[in-house]
Amino acid sequence: MDPVALIVQKYGGTSVADPDRMRAVAENVAFTRRHGNDVVVVPSAMGKTTDNLIKLANDVSKTQPGREMDMLITTGERISMSLLCMALADLGIEAVSFTGSQAGIITDSMHGKAKILEVKGDRVREALAAGKVCVVAGFQGISIEKEITSLGRGGSDTTAVALAASLAADSCEIYTDVTGVFSADPRIVPQARKLARVNFDEMLEMAGAGSRVLALRSVEFARNHNVPVHVRSAFTWEPGTWVTDQERSMEEPIISGVVTDTTESKVTIVAVPDRPGIAAALFEGLAAANVNVDMIVQNTSQDGTTDISFTMPKADMATAESIVGRVAAEIGARGVSHDSDIAKISLVGAGMKTSPGIAAKMFRTLADESVNIEMISTSTIRISVVTAASGLERAARALHTAFGLDSGQAYSAPLPERK
Amino acid sequence: MDPVALIVQKYGGTSVADPDRMRAVAENVAFTRRHGNDVVVVPSAMGKTTDNLIKLANDVSKTQPGREMDMLITTGERISMSLLCMALADLGIEAVSFTGSQAGIITDSMHGKAKILEVKGDRVREALAAGKVCVVAGFQGISIEKEITSLGRGGSDTTAVALAASLAADSCEIYTDVTGVFSADPRIVPQARKLARVNFDEMLEMAGAGSRVLALRSVEFARNHNVPVHVRSAFTWEPGTWVTDQERSMEEPIISGVVTDTTESKVTIVAVPDRPGIAAALFEGLAAANVNVDMIVQNTSQDGTTDISFTMPKADMATAESIVGRVAAEIGARGVSHDSDIAKISLVGAGMKTSPGIAAKMFRTLADESVNIEMISTSTIRISVVTAASGLERAARALHTAFGLDSGQAYSAPLPERK
Repeated sequence: MDPVALIVQKYGGTSVADPDRMRAVAENVAFTRRHGNDVVVVPSAMGKTTDNLIKLANDVSKTQPGREMDMLITTGERISMSLLCMALADLGIEAVSFTGSQAGIITDSMHGKAKILEVKGDRVREALAAGKVCVVAGFQGISIEKEITSLGRGGSDTTAVALAASLAADSCEIYTDVTGVFSADPRIVPQARKLARVNFDEMLEMAGAGSRVLALRSVEFARNHNVPVHVRSAFTWEPGTWVTDQERSMEEPIISGVVTDTTESKVTIVAVPDRPGIAAALFEGLAAANVNVDMIVQNTSQDGTTDISFTMPKADMATAESIVGRVAAEIGARGVSHDSDIAKISLVGAGMKTSPGIAAKMFRTLADESVNIEMISTSTIRISVVTAASGLERAARALHTAFGLDSGQAYSAPLPERK
Repeated sequence: MDPVALIVQKYGGTSVADPDRMRAVAENVAFTRRHGNDVVVVPSAMGKTTDNLIKLANDVSKTQPGREMDMLITTGERISMSLLCMALADLGIEAVSFTGSQAGIITDSMHGKAKILEVKGDRVREALAAGKVCVVAGFQGISIEKEITSLGRGGSDTTAVALAASLAADSCEIYTDVTGVFSADPRIVPQARKLARVNFDEMLEMAGAGSRVLALRSVEFARNHNVPVHVRSAFTWEPGTWVTDQERSMEEPIISGVVTDTTESKVTIVAVPDRPGIAAALFEGLAAANVNVDMIVQNTSQDGTTDISFTMPKADMATAESIVGRVAAEIGARGVSHDSDIAKISLVGAGMKTSPGIAAKMFRTLADESVNIEMISTSTIRISVVTAASGLERAARALHTAFGLDSGQAYSAPLPERK
């Protein structure tokens, strides 16, 4: 290990929710610094601050230009970071805060969900060289038009990983309110285990399948720049889950986890004329309205018509409903049906690439539990099915058991801890 | 009047304290805009926001570096300005918000009480030219080292007047929770009248004498750049008080108002050796600690020693006490006494320049009320006395009556209203 390592630490909203928690975080930063590491900290807004700001905006106005919303909600992280610097000063640690603009986090101009184009980080490097802890506002950047932008939900994870990549940090620690990445959501599958390690591809599929532990974009960034990420708890400080590029060894299990997601709705367009360009017309309209379509299934054509089903966030239904209705009429479909009472259940595991029969075993397990499958979608290391919401717990627990996730330390020993 | 006038409007914290008030302010901005004016708005932080942020900092840390405090407390105005833009959008008014940095409000580096060095305002001018209402964060700027700075209490008034000066605005409206500048504080002198007009010099003396209606620095700015200021209420919207460079006419009364102030303490250094450099040693130390010394009185020397008394803000007593004690010991004074139970009462009026006997009449009036005078200080258009706090109401009311302020419209008609 390097004599001086550079660690980027990100703290979630619950980790800095009140003055006591803020001081506890400062203690951990000070501990890391005093052990000879250079430290860059990315705090989220305190507790419910961002939600409260959005509520305030709703109370003031029905019209909420994206630029002004970003001006508003990016204040939450500024409050956190300045308070954290003060708490660090109390502990005798010299710290300096930087807004997204001051840290040179350059984004595109998509207010509310801006993408990071570049991290300049000049002032951060200078401050680190001067021996200071740097505290950088998460969730925000500045566009090339010099407007303040926000990165959307999970944006602070992305800020932290992007900074770690740009500064060539040795690792990026994501402190949150869970102790790591689990083999299933413990609220749904009580026998779920914490994973000591997953690789980037698995984590990507888990995030895509609905795991909320790490934001999808931050995992993409970590994979693309090979930033080792350590997901851990700011409440227990115990070792969490390492997310790295390490390939799994032969002895490790095929499946890393069962991921469940109840935030989506299913939309079916019934009896669509089966001719070229129909799907394009539909999904272009939704994309233009920034609706994030997830699974798409088109059934085999029957008598010249076909059914198209897709899933999308329940939160976007209001926006999508009118678009889908309009397009369905335009293309001469018979009708549109919605079902928000669904669950998506996914098996994720890099081992399934070389293991045939995983899908068959999954479908058999679900059949044995009398859980009906409504949609199926697969990737090389993931299989997802949509079922009725009522079958979620039964299905998730049965799959967890069937794929040997319930017991035993299936992974090799955790990576050496930095502390 | 110009076909297109440029109006700068500043709204105080109580004027934008909640969503309803924020919308009422937006209505007034929209009204001003729809009457053909270009409008720049400077909102303060909502209600107690700044105080709450300071309390949060106190809860987190005893160590509060000025840079981080400024990073923290400047968020309040950002919240206000983005919300105001949204409320304006709801009314169909295109508005755009600018931070101090984006508006090009360049300050020195004195965190917590920075001074404006320059207002660039390029983005504000461009947005005005594009037909937009500009909403600029009050109370903040950016230093030449690109650090975020705050201007101290009353800073939003200064932002508004500085912007008005830089943009050559036709007037600067200061909306607050009182209806204008009064001949005395109506809570102390019930018969106080609203003044239709005062000139810059009088307003400067009133602010210096303790009137809280306008921040002293903003009046200096207005006078130096000849910006007509209209102080008025955001609750009644009635015409308030114009502060301009207009000289008073012969018929107007000698005295404009009685200003009272109970925020200061008196410090007396007893039996100081009477030799050169003593006062310098004392006040240099206080200046270095940023203690704002107000009145200074040195009594006639007796047997080689002298007493030095001065007044200063009660809020700075903790800081000042140790400095004064140390200096007093160094210079061989016999002791130091403090009195925080005092009041300062001032008569202000441009007319007194050419009217002899004002001071004598003031002292006689106080004597008739058995109010003892402890200190006296004068300028060409102001006389201030320090008395025991218990005599404040009696003294202020008697002076108000004695100088003919109780009744009658003593000023000429108000300037034409812009609306």
